[in-house]
Amino acid sequence: MKAIVTVMLKAGVLDPQGKAIGTALHHLGFPAVADVRVGKVIELELGDMAPQDAQAAAQAMAEKLLANPVMESFRVDLAG
Amino acid sequence: MKAIVTVMLKAGVLDPQGKAIGTALHHLGFPAVADVRVGKVIELELGDMAPQDAQAAAQAMAEKLLANPVMESFRVDLAG
Repeated sequence: MKAIVTVMLKAGVLDPQGKAIGTALHHLGFPAVADVRVGKVIELELGDMAPQDAQAAAQAMAEKLLANPVMESFRVDLAG
Repeated sequence: MKAIVTVMLKAGVLDPQGKAIGTALHHLGFPAVADVRVGKVIELELGDMAPQDAQAAAQAMAEKLLANPVMESFRVDLAG
């Protein structure tokens, strides 16, 4: 079972990396880009585990280590 | 239209950040974690654009700037 944790900055938190990418994309000829937000994706290989256990474990890992709850929100998806 | 580009290291490329997270998770009491891979997710707000145009634009942005084709692979998803 694989759990995929996606961590994004909360709305309203300034994202300088996203701003830099947006500026670079404008310079590269993509004027349609209005806003860019950058986050992390963490793929966790959890071995033989029931889906609900994998979901709970990944949720706990995100709360304890993978996301900073002050500035970031996260989402857990399960795969294969 | 929003395009979401997910960039991961190619299989076989060493991921030291993922290894560090795996070790930290073991120390935090999650022994089930077998492997961890870390990637980036870039959310692009593209304004009013047809889905096939947004897909093509995000693909071009990923090839030109967002991903390093030597070490990384990417995937484009469309949302809202």
